[in-house]
Amino acid sequence: MDDLITRPDHSLIAQSRRCEQAKVDMNGDGFGLGWYGERPIPGLYRDTQPAWGDENLRSLTHQIKSNLFFAHVRASTGTATSRANCHPFAVGRYLFMHNGQIGGYEQVRRPVEALIDDHHYQFRVGTTDSEALFLAMLSHGLAEDPYRSMQTVLNKVRQIMLAAGVKSALRVTAALSDGERLYALRYSSDQVVPSLYYRLCNRSLTVVSEPLDTGEAQWHAVPTGHFLSFGGIAAPSFMPLDIPELADRAFVPA
Amino acid sequence: MDDLITRPDHSLIAQSRRCEQAKVDMNGDGFGLGWYGERPIPGLYRDTQPAWGDENLRSLTHQIKSNLFFAHVRASTGTATSRANCHPFAVGRYLFMHNGQIGGYEQVRRPVEALIDDHHYQFRVGTTDSEALFLAMLSHGLAEDPYRSMQTVLNKVRQIMLAAGVKSALRVTAALSDGERLYALRYSSDQVVPSLYYRLCNRSLTVVSEPLDTGEAQWHAVPTGHFLSFGGIAAPSFMPLDIPELADRAFVPA
Amino acid sequence: MDDLITRPDHSLIAQSRRCEQAKVDMNGDGFGLGWYGERPIPGLYRDTQPAWGDENLRSLTHQIKSNLFFAHVRASTGTATSRANCHPFAVGRYLFMHNGQIGGYEQVRRPVEALIDDHHYQFRVGTTDSEALFLAMLSHGLAEDPYRSMQTVLNKVRQIMLAAGVKSALRVTAALSDGERLYALRYSSDQVVPSLYYRLCNRSLTVVSEPLDTGEAQWHAVPTGHFLSFGGIAAPSFMPLDIPELADRAFVPA
Amino acid sequence: MDDLITRPDHSLIAQSRRCEQAKVDMNGDGFGLGWYGERPIPGLYRDTQPAWGDENLRSLTHQIKSNLFFAHVRASTGTATSRANCHPFAVGRYLFMHNGQIGGYEQVRRPVEALIDDHHYQFRVGTTDSEALFLAMLSHGLAEDPYRSMQTVLNKVRQIMLAAGVKSALRVTAALSDGERLYALRYSSDQVVPSLYYRLCNRSLTVVSEPLDTGEAQWHAVPTGHFLSFGGIAAPSFMPLDIPELADRAFVPA
Repeated sequence: MDDLITRPDHSLIAQSRRCEQAKVDMNGDGFGLGWYGERPIPGLYRDTQPAWGDENLRSLTHQIKSNLFFAHVRASTGTATSRANCHPFAVGRYLFMHNGQIGGYEQVRRPVEALIDDHHYQFRVGTTDSEALFLAMLSHGLAEDPYRSMQTVLNKVRQIMLAAGVKSALRVTAALSDGERLYALRYSSDQVVPSLYYRLCNRSLTVVSEPLDTGEAQWHAVPTGHFLSFGGIAAPSFMPLDIPELADRAFVPA
Repeated sequence: MDDLITRPDHSLIAQSRRCEQAKVDMNGDGFGLGWYGERPIPGLYRDTQPAWGDENLRSLTHQIKSNLFFAHVRASTGTATSRANCHPFAVGRYLFMHNGQIGGYEQVRRPVEALIDDHHYQFRVGTTDSEALFLAMLSHGLAEDPYRSMQTVLNKVRQIMLAAGVKSALRVTAALSDGERLYALRYSSDQVVPSLYYRLCNRSLTVVSEPLDTGEAQWHAVPTGHFLSFGGIAAPSFMPLDIPELADRAFVPA
Repeated sequence: MDDLITRPDHSLIAQSRRCEQAKVDMNGDGFGLGWYGERPIPGLYRDTQPAWGDENLRSLTHQIKSNLFFAHVRASTGTATSRANCHPFAVGRYLFMHNGQIGGYEQVRRPVEALIDDHHYQFRVGTTDSEALFLAMLSHGLAEDPYRSMQTVLNKVRQIMLAAGVKSALRVTAALSDGERLYALRYSSDQVVPSLYYRLCNRSLTVVSEPLDTGEAQWHAVPTGHFLSFGGIAAPSFMPLDIPELADRAFVPA
Repeated sequence: MDDLITRPDHSLIAQSRRCEQAKVDMNGDGFGLGWYGERPIPGLYRDTQPAWGDENLRSLTHQIKSNLFFAHVRASTGTATSRANCHPFAVGRYLFMHNGQIGGYEQVRRPVEALIDDHHYQFRVGTTDSEALFLAMLSHGLAEDPYRSMQTVLNKVRQIMLAAGVKSALRVTAALSDGERLYALRYSSDQVVPSLYYRLCNRSLTVVSEPLDTGEAQWHAVPTGHFLSFGGIAAPSFMPLDIPELADRAFVPA
C-alpha cells in the first residue's frame, strides 16, 4: 500500500502535514486505514496521533497488500480525538469514510442519530457526524441500493437541518465499499464543495481528496452532486444526486 | 493529593493493578482525576493508559492541593477505552464518577439516553452508561435536589430495563459533587452490591471502593440502598433510596 | 494469526491480563507484534496500551497471514512505557524479543551499551536492557553465528554485572529470527529461570512463555541453559550455553 | 497559566498548529508543561499528542497557578515521539527546554552522551539531543554556575561536531530554571539563529520563541550569542557566550 500512501510527492502522509485544497491547515487529529485482504470483513488500523509520526502506519503500509483499501487523515470539526472517531468506519463487510461536515451538528445531532435504526445503533461507538451518516445509510438500505440509500439520508439530513434553522451547509465527500465495489459521492448544499478526484490507470481506480502527485494530468474531478460507482466493469459510472437545493449539479465530463 | 492516591499500601494506583473486593481483576482501561482548586469549575486529568505507569499522574498528584477531589481507575464493561469514557465526568461545576453497570446496556441504551434532555445532550461526548446516568441526573433536577434526581433516574432506568426484559442487574455506586458538598450512593437491584466505604477523620471524609490501608479499623461500609450527603456539618448523613425492588435496604449504623 | 494470539483459552491476550507462571501479575505496559510476510524485512506493530483493549491488534491478527511471527506483552521492569521500548525489536531482517532482566541495570547500563558497536548504536531508539542485548548481539556476529553471538554477549554482560558488584541475577529468555530460522534461549544466573515452552505440531514450531491451552500435553519446557534452533529440518535442535556460573544446565530431553 | 498558554492570539496552542518564524510548519509531535508550585521540585505534564487537541492541557492550564513555568510544543528533528522525548525535562529542582538541533546528531550521539557523567546518566530516559545537552550541563557544574556550564557544554559539542566532520550547524535556544532564577540562551554556529524574545511587564519576565500577540511593541529579541539571567532584581541581564566560531555576537541593546 505504501506505493500510494507514503511514497508520492503529495502522499496522504504529506497531506496530513499540509493540505493544499482542503479548508484546513492540517489533518493531525488521528488517521485510519481500512483494507480488504483475504477475509470478507475489512482490516482496520486507526490511531489518534498524527499520521506523519506513526511508525506502525509506515510498517503496515509497507507490508499489507490489498486490491481495495481506504486511508484517511482527520481534522476534527469539533468532536473528540479518539480511535472510535477516526475514519474509516467498518460495519460488517462495509467500509466508509467522509470529508465534510453536517453544519450545526450540535443542534441536529439527536434527530440525525434518530435516522439510525435500532439494529445499527449498537454499532454507534463514537460521536462523529460521519459515523452517524454511515449508520443512517446502513439503516436505509445501503446493502440493497447504495445510491438510493445515500441520497435518501442526505435528503433527510438536509430536511432536519432546515427544520432546525441551521444556516451552515451540509458538505459531504464520502467513499464506501463492500469489498467488491467502490462508491463515492461529492455534494454540498452551498457553493463550497470539498474536492474529490479520481484516476483510472491500468483498470485501477484511485479516488482522493487531493491529487497525489503535482502533475495533475491524469486526475479528474468527481462532478459535484454526483455519485460514483466502480466495479465489475472497466470504468467508473456517475449518477446525479437528486437533492433539491443542490448548489451545483452541472455535469462536467471527465 | 498523593497522600491518598499514590502512597497508601492499598492506594488507588495499587488498586489499578489488583483489586481485592471488586469483581474485576484489574482496572487498566484508563483513569481519571477531578479536583476543585481555586476555580469554581473542577480540573480534569484523564487518560487511557493504566494508572500505574503514568508519570503525569504521579507528578500531578504530587503537585496539586485540593480539599475535594475524585480519582478513578476504570475496568471497561464493554465500551471503548477513550478519554471521553474515563471517569470522573465534569459538566459545569459538577463532578461525577461511577462503579457498576446498567445490565443489558446494549439493549436499553437508546431509552436510557432519552432520559437526557436536549440541553444536556450536547455534553454527551462519550458512549458509557456512566456518562448517560450523569447527564440524565443533570436533566432531572440534580442542581435542585441531588437525592431526588439520582433516585428518580435509577427508578426510570430500572423500569426501562424491566420493560426491555433485561435479566441482569443494575448496580451503581456513584460519587457526585458540586465543589461544596459530596454525595454518594450505593445500590444494586440484586444481591451483588459493589462495595463502598467511608472514613471520617479530622472532619475530612474519604469515600472509597476499597479501604486504602489494610487496617480497616476506621472504615465503614456505606449501607446498601442509601444515599450519602456530606458538607457543611461535621458528619455524613444517610437517606434510604426508594427503589421498589431494592434487594437489600437494611440500615447498618456505621 | 489470531488462531494463536487471541483465540486460545490461555492466549497471549489473556496472558496480558493474568500470567500464571511468570513473576508478574500482569503485562499491561505495552505489547508488540512482528511478522514476516511478503517482504524480506518484518512488519512491526507496537503500542503502549494494554493488549487486551486494543482493537487494532484484534483486527491485525485477524487479517495478517504469516508463517513466522513474534508476539509480546510487556511488564516493565523499570524503563518507560513507550513504543520504542516495546518488543519485538526489529533491525534489518531480524526480529528479537526478550523476557527477563539484567539485574542492577541502572548500575551497568553504560558498559552494557558499550557492547554495541558504532554501526548498530544508531538503531538504539529506546532505553531498555532488552534492546541493548539485541544490538550487542548484532554487534557480535549475530548474522554469522547466532549461538556464538548470544552466548558471547550473555557472558560479557555477566562479567560486567560481577565487576560492578551487582547481586541480582541475569535472567534471559529470548527469541530471535532472520525470517527463515527461529532461535530461542533460556538462561538464568540463579535458580529462578523464566519459563519457556515449545510445541511441534505438523512441522510447525510454537515457542511460548506459557502454554496457550490448559491441556499441557504437547508442550515441552525448553531446557534451562540451552539455545534452541529451528529451520530447514523437521525438529528443533538444542545446544548448551557455555556461561560459567550457569545455575542449572541439566538437559532434560523433551 | 492559560492567560499565557491558551488565550493570546498567537498562543502556544496556536503555535502548535502554525509557527510563523520558526523553521517548521507545525509543532505536532508532543508537548509539555513544567511548573513550580508549592513543592521544591517542579510539576511535569507531557504527552505525545498535538497540544491543540488535548483537553487535559486546557484543564491544567486553567487550574494551575504558578509564578514560574515552562511550556513547549515539539517538532521532532528525527527522534521518536514519546513522552520521555518531550520538553521540558526535569531533574531534581531543574527544568530545561530547548529549540534547535545538534547537526549530524546521529554521527556524534555517542561522544555527546559521553559528556554526561555516571551520576546523571541514570536520568537519561529518552533519546533526544536536547535531553543529552541538559544532562551534560548538569554534569558540568550547572548547579554552581549555569553560564559557565552551558558555555562549556556548547563548546565541547561544537568540538565534537567539528572533529566528526559534521557540516550542519549547532543551533540552540534554551531555557533553564532552578525554581528561583530563569536562564536562557540563544546561539547558532551559523547565520540561521532560532528566534527568542522576551518581555518584561510588571516585574514579570516572559521568554518565548515567538511573540504571543501580534502587536510586537513590548517584545525584544534576545541578542544572538548571549546568555540571559533573571531573578532577584528587576531586569534580566545578558552575558556574551564565548564560543569561538560564533556566527553573530553583535549585542543589540533591547
